[in-house]
Amino acid sequence: MTLLESAKQGQITDTIQAAARFENVSPELLAGELALGRAVIAANKIHLSGCLKPMAIGRIVSTKINANLGASSVHFSLDDERAKLQLALTTGADAVMDLSTGGNLDEIRQMFIAESPVPVGTVPMYEMIVDRDVESLTVDYMLNIIAKQAAQGVDFFTIHAGILREYLPLTLKRVCGIVSRGGALLAKWMVYHQRQNPLYEHFDDICAIMKEYDVTFSLGDGLRPGALADASDQAQLSELRTLGELTQRAQEAGCQVIVEGPGHVPLDQIEYNMKLEQEICKGAPFYVLGPLVTDIGAGYDHISAAIGATLAAYYGASFLCYVTPTEHLGLPDSEAVRTGVIAFKIAAHAADIARGLPGARDRDDKMSKARAALDWPAMFSLALDGQKAKQIRERDECPGNDYCSMCGKKWCAIRINNEMKMLMESKR
Amino acid sequence: MTLLESAKQGQITDTIQAAARFENVSPELLAGELALGRAVIAANKIHLSGCLKPMAIGRIVSTKINANLGASSVHFSLDDERAKLQLALTTGADAVMDLSTGGNLDEIRQMFIAESPVPVGTVPMYEMIVDRDVESLTVDYMLNIIAKQAAQGVDFFTIHAGILREYLPLTLKRVCGIVSRGGALLAKWMVYHQRQNPLYEHFDDICAIMKEYDVTFSLGDGLRPGALADASDQAQLSELRTLGELTQRAQEAGCQVIVEGPGHVPLDQIEYNMKLEQEICKGAPFYVLGPLVTDIGAGYDHISAAIGATLAAYYGASFLCYVTPTEHLGLPDSEAVRTGVIAFKIAAHAADIARGLPGARDRDDKMSKARAALDWPAMFSLALDGQKAKQIRERDECPGNDYCSMCGKKWCAIRINNEMKMLMESKR
Repeated sequence: MTLLESAKQGQITDTIQAAARFENVSPELLAGELALGRAVIAANKIHLSGCLKPMAIGRIVSTKINANLGASSVHFSLDDERAKLQLALTTGADAVMDLSTGGNLDEIRQMFIAESPVPVGTVPMYEMIVDRDVESLTVDYMLNIIAKQAAQGVDFFTIHAGILREYLPLTLKRVCGIVSRGGALLAKWMVYHQRQNPLYEHFDDICAIMKEYDVTFSLGDGLRPGALADASDQAQLSELRTLGELTQRAQEAGCQVIVEGPGHVPLDQIEYNMKLEQEICKGAPFYVLGPLVTDIGAGYDHISAAIGATLAAYYGASFLCYVTPTEHLGLPDSEAVRTGVIAFKIAAHAADIARGLPGARDRDDKMSKARAALDWPAMFSLALDGQKAKQIRERDECPGNDYCSMCGKKWCAIRINNEMKMLMESKR
Repeated sequence: MTLLESAKQGQITDTIQAAARFENVSPELLAGELALGRAVIAANKIHLSGCLKPMAIGRIVSTKINANLGASSVHFSLDDERAKLQLALTTGADAVMDLSTGGNLDEIRQMFIAESPVPVGTVPMYEMIVDRDVESLTVDYMLNIIAKQAAQGVDFFTIHAGILREYLPLTLKRVCGIVSRGGALLAKWMVYHQRQNPLYEHFDDICAIMKEYDVTFSLGDGLRPGALADASDQAQLSELRTLGELTQRAQEAGCQVIVEGPGHVPLDQIEYNMKLEQEICKGAPFYVLGPLVTDIGAGYDHISAAIGATLAAYYGASFLCYVTPTEHLGLPDSEAVRTGVIAFKIAAHAADIARGLPGARDRDDKMSKARAALDWPAMFSLALDGQKAKQIRERDECPGNDYCSMCGKKWCAIRINNEMKMLMESKR
């Protein structure tokens, strides 16, 4: 049985128990949310028998973040990917996707599954076009690749089954067309063969494969907007309605589902987008890529995206796909991975505080107390990236430890405030 | 006459004309907003006779950002400050503050005024305690320093006149007490002398100095929260009400006013804070420091703050004070200044798009068109920091220019999308 099937029958499996313990919620509550499709535990049976530590994605638990990793044909190295995986894990990624399109794909993917205690996702489409053109792909070949990766232990698959042939003309009006790699490849296949999306037509076959290993669907948004000008357009929203139908079909087949979302969205359209997905997909966890709130931040798109992601998580998203400083420009290196993960930890955490998740602000309060006490070691241990904080602090020498180089000793507000308090006591 | 007095009399001065042209609004509209105190043109007569190019701050024009610069007692160099000023200007700062507390303060301040075409602000309090304790300050000495800096040409002063003696006990309940340097110094003075805030008691004298040179008040929030736990508390809101009274008094005296705001504020309290200031201060431009939406981002506080700043500007702020990656840890160096400015350009711009400022999205649309055309030179010229974008792009070699190292040639969505479009045409 899959986790969804167990939950629907009211069974609290060991995996549900473990995830509930990790999330600090009751197993019954988590099982109830799983049964309704409003939470998932992305856990392939194979990976679960290995090093995977189950966690949950959904509104009742903390907002999770994903780090996209993987080699490209321009830059590939197993060791680099291993190093980036370890860095993503130590900086706090809750899930990783291996989006490799270069190097030995099986070897890299198997390394991820063997070494990652957090869920590993892939986009099977990427492997399909290695050494062949997308036009030459047969349905059997596509299903075989999906089945192979499922058997290897991948926890969630991006499946672009919602981009239908009839939606393609809608993308011609767009400024940026189709910016999803999987979406663009499928579009080309459909136009070439003059046929419907094969992942849509064979969705039941895919469900059967997913179910065997309990792989979670991440229903891809092949028509996500790649420009503010294209946000919330007919192409995007048509696909979302199809994703709503597919969510239900997959869940009825016993499969867990998360739904992917934009992209590039102006700040004032984020609430609408989040609420619409929750309505159409009946609360299935929304997994958003950013969204970026401006198109002109190249080199700093982790910031444009973290702004949108915070709002998205506040208004309805449960799972945030990080964006790094190299977005739109090149493959992220280790430094970009680190920066992207921290930017998104900030976004997820800020949203969890704002939506009142119990205990979310505890670490902030401890940090503020450490600040008021000028307790630098405590500040470094409480910071999301204490190592980086320590480096900055120690760049300038500040003997005595009761101030930093920002204000210098005489102008340190914290120090003066403490002196003022003592003076106030003495005057009483 | 000051600009406020001219505007109240319906006079469109050359300065108002110039600022309106720069802002692309009608001079009459701008003068009307100036007269109502809902916009300011921070322009000291001395600086205006030098290199200052007038611009406006208010809701009818684009959101502006300020870069805090200046040396500290731990790290001071005129050349470093000059270099940081130039960097802040080239990366897009709309105003700068010289917050120097180390080095030759007059020399640094005069360099800023001589070389900055954007408004220069200071916190006169900082100069007051050079070589003396705050307790030893007399009212005359304070007024003399303010008058000297006004005569030097400073465009706006942070004056912490709203932190009253009776509010100090409220700060004892706080996690982080008083985190404003000026606020903490005045608090210590008040407790030591058992007297009211001298800047409040002598507010009319200060108005007279400000009026002579048309220096704009930036009414300081000495009690701004420095921790999420302290946000929107009684200390903060009590001071805000006093700032509301002082706004009116200063405006009646003919002085322009902006009001300073938090600080550290959870995401869900930002809208409330912005609307409250607009109500209490009758629409006087709100100048916020961040706000940071989490306390645990040390090393990345420009991101925590840019998230809050975007929301703040969307809901009511007109002027954003940047926060850099070295916040809470040390004095910003050039790289931190650059990063802080760009993070806040993103925040201001994203908010301007979301609140529907005419033309705000034009540059984004041009960028998206350049992306769809894989036109890299255009993308670099449209990016907020094209130099950084170019560096990232050129780290990996991608011959042919029709893809980047993120996806590699075969998986470039833009390239595939264009091929799909051509195929679609040919099948028609």
